[in-house]
Amino acid sequence: MSTDNAARERLVVIGGDAAGMSAASGARRLRGPDELEIVAFERGDFTSYSACGIPYWVGGQVGGPDELIARSPEEHRERDIDLRMRTEVVKIDVEGRRVRARELDGGAETWVAYDKLVIATGARPLRPDLPGMDAPGVHGVQTLGDGQELLGTLRATEGRKAVVVGAGYIGVEMAEALLHRGYEVTVVNRGAEPMSTLDPDMGRLVHEAMAGMGITLVDDAEVTKILTGDDGRVRAVATQEADHPADIVVLGLGVRPETTLARDAGLPLGDSGGLLTDLGMRVRGHDNIWAGGDCVEVLDLVSGRERHIALGTHANKHGQVIGANVGGGYATFPGVVGTAVSKVCDLEIARTGLREKDALRAGLQFVSVTVESTSRAGYYPGAALMTVKMIAERRTGKLLGMQIVGREGAAKRVDVAAVALTAGMTVEQMTALDLGYAPPFSPVWDPVLVAARKATSAVRAAAG
Amino acid sequence: MSTDNAARERLVVIGGDAAGMSAASGARRLRGPDELEIVAFERGDFTSYSACGIPYWVGGQVGGPDELIARSPEEHRERDIDLRMRTEVVKIDVEGRRVRARELDGGAETWVAYDKLVIATGARPLRPDLPGMDAPGVHGVQTLGDGQELLGTLRATEGRKAVVVGAGYIGVEMAEALLHRGYEVTVVNRGAEPMSTLDPDMGRLVHEAMAGMGITLVDDAEVTKILTGDDGRVRAVATQEADHPADIVVLGLGVRPETTLARDAGLPLGDSGGLLTDLGMRVRGHDNIWAGGDCVEVLDLVSGRERHIALGTHANKHGQVIGANVGGGYATFPGVVGTAVSKVCDLEIARTGLREKDALRAGLQFVSVTVESTSRAGYYPGAALMTVKMIAERRTGKLLGMQIVGREGAAKRVDVAAVALTAGMTVEQMTALDLGYAPPFSPVWDPVLVAARKATSAVRAAAG
Repeated sequence: MSTDNAARERLVVIGGDAAGMSAASGARRLRGPDELEIVAFERGDFTSYSACGIPYWVGGQVGGPDELIARSPEEHRERDIDLRMRTEVVKIDVEGRRVRARELDGGAETWVAYDKLVIATGARPLRPDLPGMDAPGVHGVQTLGDGQELLGTLRATEGRKAVVVGAGYIGVEMAEALLHRGYEVTVVNRGAEPMSTLDPDMGRLVHEAMAGMGITLVDDAEVTKILTGDDGRVRAVATQEADHPADIVVLGLGVRPETTLARDAGLPLGDSGGLLTDLGMRVRGHDNIWAGGDCVEVLDLVSGRERHIALGTHANKHGQVIGANVGGGYATFPGVVGTAVSKVCDLEIARTGLREKDALRAGLQFVSVTVESTSRAGYYPGAALMTVKMIAERRTGKLLGMQIVGREGAAKRVDVAAVALTAGMTVEQMTALDLGYAPPFSPVWDPVLVAARKATSAVRAAAG
Repeated sequence: MSTDNAARERLVVIGGDAAGMSAASGARRLRGPDELEIVAFERGDFTSYSACGIPYWVGGQVGGPDELIARSPEEHRERDIDLRMRTEVVKIDVEGRRVRARELDGGAETWVAYDKLVIATGARPLRPDLPGMDAPGVHGVQTLGDGQELLGTLRATEGRKAVVVGAGYIGVEMAEALLHRGYEVTVVNRGAEPMSTLDPDMGRLVHEAMAGMGITLVDDAEVTKILTGDDGRVRAVATQEADHPADIVVLGLGVRPETTLARDAGLPLGDSGGLLTDLGMRVRGHDNIWAGGDCVEVLDLVSGRERHIALGTHANKHGQVIGANVGGGYATFPGVVGTAVSKVCDLEIARTGLREKDALRAGLQFVSVTVESTSRAGYYPGAALMTVKMIAERRTGKLLGMQIVGREGAAKRVDVAAVALTAGMTVEQMTALDLGYAPPFSPVWDPVLVAARKATSAVRAAAG
């Protein structure tokens, strides 16, 4: 044992956001300070915050940054967690069971021994290596610090031209935020349609709806450089085709697992660079190391493959599972089905499971159907159209995925498919689901049931 | 064969609402008029309408009655269905494979032979046999005709005192409707709390919320008579304790299966008086008779018992299944889990599965937990509190039921539990469900996940 007291173990946590601090708190609930010392390192200025809330802070719908912080460093310390802020772990010595920590202010470095280690280093935003990318006025939206900097630029340029690079979740949410701030918004997108997490036909609906909100979408466009003015500030975003004037540029190109430390330490990484863990979030082959949150890969229960999905709800679940296991309890994280919901102004977007191209890649034969229905009984005020796409395995009729684009009341209907995917249901079984019905909440056939009926017919026709 | 053409069968349908006409339409889609003659009898003036929409028509949120009609008699006739309106079937001759029909206007009676029969006679409202119950100003809300009569009384008494008898779905929805019309509303309720389809602790929340809307709730009250004035009109509703002044009385006491015809014909009925069918909605023991909608009992997949549940969404499913089977296809209705959603003004109410008393009656040992959470991330505008109660089998941890009382965004979350019940999931399995998360749609732990976590802890504690 490397601690002073042979009966007392030390847990070291790298990363002070959702996964890391949930793990620390969970372990603390199970084991008091007499049994377990907890040391946590966070290189930034904040702990346990909702990065998913940043677009709404930037858009002005929510205050910040305090409102986005679930638990402050002080609150963690009150729970007997030795939290060291603005301190970066620069090396993991797996053999020696210790980490090397550097204080960002002053640069002092020390080795800290651990009995158990939790790696929760999160993700880093993709930032293409292009000319002008570091110019003032070009912003990421990954951390609360990013949000603060972006708001500073907004105050200086409000109501002018904004270009968002990328049309995934962060991209479309930032388009909404900038629209709220009075900007003329252009979204430059590499794909054929926005929201590449949807099939292109559903992405097309998002394109059309966003265009209807006054957002300019430039699809099939590769950014070649950021053009700057005489003052060095961003002036435009250049693609092969055109220059798109910009007083502010927001990058929403997605993220990759931040696993430099883990890689250097020889820990097992998957194809997308995320840490590989077992069902209990223990790093494979390492009894005393756990990992969770945006730095790990998760098992996709539909495709059977490991994937990287950066999402706060997974990070919190990982942290809870790790906390239980580190604390001597038992919990598991079986995997995901790939559920995600988002919105752009009043447009709701949801997906779960496989897209057509995922099914093709997995070598599956499938049918896919698309239906239109409404969020409430057609005659009830506020009934809003939604489009539901459902994909089922051709031979078995098993649900493979579902996507929804609609207005109020559309997105969370995806949860029905998320549970059905988890349970391995067929679309025919889904037609009989006893979903809540009353005119203010659903047509007499819920849109998910309408889609399941059409998918069932398609499966039967394909078999016939 | 009893039809003119030996190759042509005749289907007779009794009842022209959701189940009956869905069955007729479905059979027609599979078999053209050359193969199948379809004769349908409806004793009322309307077909295929949404009775569930009547409270909103009465409340003024939706127009009516046309908006509530999904398909008119003319539209059915255009699909080669020989629909006979205002014609009541007065006898089923099972041996002779014929029904006796009486035209309400004129009284002419004829025998009509069938090869296949669909019974969709619906339900009748409970109407206690008490003095004054037939007085002008006392209304049911079962049919579109009831709605029209009620609206006539409303125009004459608007803005005065209304008493609703019964505090189930219809009762609370009618309380909202009358509130919208400017009435001073009292709900007289036999139970200890409104919404006896919930456990009393959850019903209490409904009581409190309704009281907060200015509705007077009189619980534990048995109506003894309807008091009338000198003009013969309703004047008050008397209970053992007090007289409650009323310019209008609305009865919302629930319904019973309308199976007089079926009983007289010796067809099998269950404990609640509903017809008993097999998985394909065929009446047990009768190869050529199907039944669906509010006149049948359905299998409760959680308790394993037959129950009567009058709900438009089930009736439509039954009709679709019957149509497929009568038309020579194959479809099944496996059963229900008892999902229901409702609202009173901005209060949303949902339930699925077993209540505590159902679990006790079924001889199950269980744990139940209650949590409070919000519809959106706590910091996101419009985040509304909701209370979620979850019941799990003590030994296995299997989900038994869930109830929700909250505001906007609460009720349809019950669908997650409805699918989980259908799949036989444990509450621990539910803690890992990949439900849609983004701040406008859910806290990072969806309220259903919060409840599942607490239920999991309770199951573990009970085992320990």
